[in-house]
Amino acid sequence: MNLGKRQAYCSTLMLVASLAWASNAHAKTAEELTIALDTIWVVLTASLVFFMNLGFALVESGFCRSKNTVNILSKNFIVFAISCLAFYVFGWGLMFGNGSGFIGSEGLLMLGGADNSPATGDAYMGAYKSIAWTGVPVYAKFFFQLVFAGTAATIVSGCVAERIKYFSFIVFSFLLVAFVYPITGHWIWGGGWLATTGFWDFAGSTVVHSVGGWAGLAGILVLGPRLGKYLPGGKMKPIPAHSLTSGLIGCFVLWLGWFGFNPGSTMAADPNAISHIFLTTNTACFMALLSATALNWILDGKPDLGMSINGCLAGLVAITAPCAFVTVKASLIIGLLAGFIVVGAVKLLDKLQIDDPVGAVPVHLFNGVWGTICVGLFAVDKITGAATGNGLFNGGGMTLLIAQLKGIVAVGVYALVVSLIFWHAIKAIFGLRVSKEEEEEGLDIGEHGQFAYIGFGK
Amino acid sequence: MNLGKRQAYCSTLMLVASLAWASNAHAKTAEELTIALDTIWVVLTASLVFFMNLGFALVESGFCRSKNTVNILSKNFIVFAISCLAFYVFGWGLMFGNGSGFIGSEGLLMLGGADNSPATGDAYMGAYKSIAWTGVPVYAKFFFQLVFAGTAATIVSGCVAERIKYFSFIVFSFLLVAFVYPITGHWIWGGGWLATTGFWDFAGSTVVHSVGGWAGLAGILVLGPRLGKYLPGGKMKPIPAHSLTSGLIGCFVLWLGWFGFNPGSTMAADPNAISHIFLTTNTACFMALLSATALNWILDGKPDLGMSINGCLAGLVAITAPCAFVTVKASLIIGLLAGFIVVGAVKLLDKLQIDDPVGAVPVHLFNGVWGTICVGLFAVDKITGAATGNGLFNGGGMTLLIAQLKGIVAVGVYALVVSLIFWHAIKAIFGLRVSKEEEEEGLDIGEHGQFAYIGFGK
Amino acid sequence: MNLGKRQAYCSTLMLVASLAWASNAHAKTAEELTIALDTIWVVLTASLVFFMNLGFALVESGFCRSKNTVNILSKNFIVFAISCLAFYVFGWGLMFGNGSGFIGSEGLLMLGGADNSPATGDAYMGAYKSIAWTGVPVYAKFFFQLVFAGTAATIVSGCVAERIKYFSFIVFSFLLVAFVYPITGHWIWGGGWLATTGFWDFAGSTVVHSVGGWAGLAGILVLGPRLGKYLPGGKMKPIPAHSLTSGLIGCFVLWLGWFGFNPGSTMAADPNAISHIFLTTNTACFMALLSATALNWILDGKPDLGMSINGCLAGLVAITAPCAFVTVKASLIIGLLAGFIVVGAVKLLDKLQIDDPVGAVPVHLFNGVWGTICVGLFAVDKITGAATGNGLFNGGGMTLLIAQLKGIVAVGVYALVVSLIFWHAIKAIFGLRVSKEEEEEGLDIGEHGQFAYIGFGK
Repeated sequence: MNLGKRQAYCSTLMLVASLAWASNAHAKTAEELTIALDTIWVVLTASLVFFMNLGFALVESGFCRSKNTVNILSKNFIVFAISCLAFYVFGWGLMFGNGSGFIGSEGLLMLGGADNSPATGDAYMGAYKSIAWTGVPVYAKFFFQLVFAGTAATIVSGCVAERIKYFSFIVFSFLLVAFVYPITGHWIWGGGWLATTGFWDFAGSTVVHSVGGWAGLAGILVLGPRLGKYLPGGKMKPIPAHSLTSGLIGCFVLWLGWFGFNPGSTMAADPNAISHIFLTTNTACFMALLSATALNWILDGKPDLGMSINGCLAGLVAITAPCAFVTVKASLIIGLLAGFIVVGAVKLLDKLQIDDPVGAVPVHLFNGVWGTICVGLFAVDKITGAATGNGLFNGGGMTLLIAQLKGIVAVGVYALVVSLIFWHAIKAIFGLRVSKEEEEEGLDIGEHGQFAYIGFGK
Repeated sequence: MNLGKRQAYCSTLMLVASLAWASNAHAKTAEELTIALDTIWVVLTASLVFFMNLGFALVESGFCRSKNTVNILSKNFIVFAISCLAFYVFGWGLMFGNGSGFIGSEGLLMLGGADNSPATGDAYMGAYKSIAWTGVPVYAKFFFQLVFAGTAATIVSGCVAERIKYFSFIVFSFLLVAFVYPITGHWIWGGGWLATTGFWDFAGSTVVHSVGGWAGLAGILVLGPRLGKYLPGGKMKPIPAHSLTSGLIGCFVLWLGWFGFNPGSTMAADPNAISHIFLTTNTACFMALLSATALNWILDGKPDLGMSINGCLAGLVAITAPCAFVTVKASLIIGLLAGFIVVGAVKLLDKLQIDDPVGAVPVHLFNGVWGTICVGLFAVDKITGAATGNGLFNGGGMTLLIAQLKGIVAVGVYALVVSLIFWHAIKAIFGLRVSKEEEEEGLDIGEHGQFAYIGFGK
Repeated sequence: MNLGKRQAYCSTLMLVASLAWASNAHAKTAEELTIALDTIWVVLTASLVFFMNLGFALVESGFCRSKNTVNILSKNFIVFAISCLAFYVFGWGLMFGNGSGFIGSEGLLMLGGADNSPATGDAYMGAYKSIAWTGVPVYAKFFFQLVFAGTAATIVSGCVAERIKYFSFIVFSFLLVAFVYPITGHWIWGGGWLATTGFWDFAGSTVVHSVGGWAGLAGILVLGPRLGKYLPGGKMKPIPAHSLTSGLIGCFVLWLGWFGFNPGSTMAADPNAISHIFLTTNTACFMALLSATALNWILDGKPDLGMSINGCLAGLVAITAPCAFVTVKASLIIGLLAGFIVVGAVKLLDKLQIDDPVGAVPVHLFNGVWGTICVGLFAVDKITGAATGNGLFNGGGMTLLIAQLKGIVAVGVYALVVSLIFWHAIKAIFGLRVSKEEEEEGLDIGEHGQFAYIGFGK
């Protein structure tokens, strides 16, 4: 309705600029507009990533039994709060603070470092040089990284569900986000030693998902399987989901959240990169959903909704590292195989009697590794700007693939070993597992004195 | 906290520009800023539209019986994946590729055409001229259109719920998005023959909702009603919703999604158009919610939540075509009548023994038609820029109204006839309906071997 | 993939500008870009705030009994529709129209005033001067304020749950949004008398949350407690939540919505303010979640998920007024105490036999007051731009604190007294409370003739 007014603006930018400046105090300069645009992109995508906490809460609780629902929802709720505290006090500085190749040391504790963001490049002066490539205020950088740290912690929750003490889980979450996630994160995104070896992980298949997966796997190994899951004689008793409605709501929320997770990792409103990443992310996801559903249908005779959900998530995890480095057609193949991998990994874990109630290890660890490898296989140099070099299937030889494999091993060893130490320490100090009676009755009563559902029995 | 620094910028844009350029490599030009801003608008609104898949899943599953919940959730999940595949391989090129007035033929198969987006207007060179009016990268255009195509397919799911074979539904969804939706879409949004007759459909009352509604109606006609729905002697047995909590979550998610669907269809960050569309969309929606609730309350004696939900959705569907072409006051009237129409249509379908378990035909088809007619009644020429001419009630005579009616009929005939052919073909090849035993027991066991809910009976 | 093309642009903004202008019709000027950026920020954050309606619906219904679920969902659904009508017809003009210090009088009824938005400052000419500081179209301003008005009304719903007549609740909601909320809102955000006394409320701890809380408290006082809640002899019978899954979904949706509520209240894409507000908002929230959980755990022996949820919401309400005026470290303390306050207030209300089924008064009223006080305690002058002066703990003395306390009292008196009058009038005319039989049987049957859940009893 103001079209007339708008058309009255003069026809060259210079003239407009001076007029605008005279008449309207709130017009921004190109520099300011760039910063503002990048900032709203970062905070809105961060909000989507934050919302993934709900997704994880619902997939995990839905896939487990109703008698443990309050406990699982509580874990997935408080884990983000405790992650915020841990990342604010310790994690951010260790991860992004200037320091050695192994660990950040400047600007530790509560965002305490000097910082002149949104200045970028050489103009940046402060404690967090490794993240000075994005021209947004430091609080926006912090908030975006905070929600990523929270994601890593919440992955663990699924692995240890239905048997862990609430308090002990809270303690581990704090330690993970304070002292595990930011260290390996520093190696890769904090300008550390892995970044200098030519290892690439765009949005965190390794930094976030594999680390969460290794920490969760460590928890499973220390806790052991749920009562009654593995029967004598090597038989396995399926423990079905208590609410597939919860499960599917959670999955769609996660899918939506990934449109923040991957494209948001540009941390700048770069239209080509963002559009590219949206498409590779969605493509790998839908292909993995289709391939996991199909393979499971063929193997088990009927299409299982839980496996479709895990297939979808597997594709999303797998494309997280390579989303900005590969073609859309490559993302089709990455997703196709991610769906197969998750189906196989679920069956493998049950063979090994590793009791992962929600399939978090197949989704986040197996496909975190697979996605990181995919950079080495499918990367196209500078396809959205980053000089990754070409992957094996694109004529680049083994160089990039070997760098990726080295990174996978290094991060895996650190995350698994330190997590095992933390889990054992917590077990020794606080105890890790609820009593048999409590586990059988359900943790909702034992840990919380509450029922999740009352009055549904019509 | 950088306010001081910001105020230090000089006071004319020219000087700022050169300074900014010297000191900060990441400041964008006006051209780049425009493209970046338009792109984040498109991808964020597309994300909201994507999220509507969850809304449809919950409204449909909530409105049906618990014994079919896994099946309904599965359908609403995989339908988006299969729609993505169909639109990527066939749909996009047929809809937006350069070609005849009837069908696109350039740039078919997997976004295969030449394209120099984000160039616009005469500067555009490539295979997708009909969508070159928006200055965003082609992948952003594709992703936005992809989530719209997915919406059309998911509408069908509600119509055929509680009796269709999972596999057969998947096949139909693929065919719909590959060969029905993009053809009529090409006529209107792809620069085809209807666009040249003066037919207007801003965000898809016809292109998306009516097409989904016709395809679903065809499915109902071929499938027949659910067992036990219509009793001998013309009596009707209501089959109540199994979870109105699911239903209302779904409705709010859809309402939110429509704030992407309608304003996002600008595909550019045009502040006046966007603000206008937000308000007309919300106004029609709340009025239809009020009018459907009130009419149903008067007719049946008590306010039915399911009818309030369908009223809300009816208003949203109705305002989809005219949202950018009518005043806010007109949107009040459009919504008011949409609410009445949906209540009447639900009763009419039951009279005709057309068994639509969730009211998808009253919502999407009846109100898709109503909304498209409203352009002809209420349009105000260039109210947000588009030269629609004036509608009947605004002094424009019958011209626009007749163009709208022609389009409604043409699209309806094509969508209904081709859908009927596809449904019959699938019935002949794969079978369409589950067995009586399976329908009575619930499709969750028969098709998926799963229960949606376990352990709620406290 | 267009990087080459982009790099070909020349290296000064002036030259780019003329080239861009010649070649591409859709590049925007700096003025237009600013308006467009601010507008998409406002409408997207408004959409998040709109989504809070779902959050309130789920927290309230989840915390109450299954037999009242349809009624609670219906109330939370229609309350937004009726609020839209009330704010469109009366509220907006009374709140933001030019007028006296007490009430707006220009541009009443259906956005009827003259307006040349997005012109700002002295360039603005029209009926809504008090909101002319934001340079977006008037429809965007209206929509943002509309969703805030809706929030105030939906708070009331929780207070009066499980016993109020559906129709009477609808009438009160209309009156609240038409004649209570906009009056006190005019005093503060509409350029009225409180704004001139140095009272500050950035995003509405008082304007929105306290007003909703006072109106709800009035409703509780007039309605009395639910049957069976308080037993003879001063004993209290806990009425547990029927679905903590609903409760937690609702809470996460509200947390997400607050990332629209608080940062969006900038109503302009100011990167520093936005980043700052994101961080203070999130920090107060996670600290309150932790402190409420911990205190409740200590007092009652087990961590209660309902209390964790209310702790989270308490932190969000408390930081709403001061989010733009205090440091991140202050937000830690504000949140810490908000968590304690909500635990204490829940226990206090039960002592006083004030039956607030969902804890809305402790969350919205107690913490709305607390947050408003916090501005007086912790404010740092111009920390994100606003000249609040310093708070007590920051060397500013009592001035700001006293202004805040005066505002709290003035708004409280008006909102409580007028609400009481409206509740009594409705009681006299329509009746307020359902019959004992209906309350015992559940309002779902009595008011709606529906069950919320069918077929869960496996």
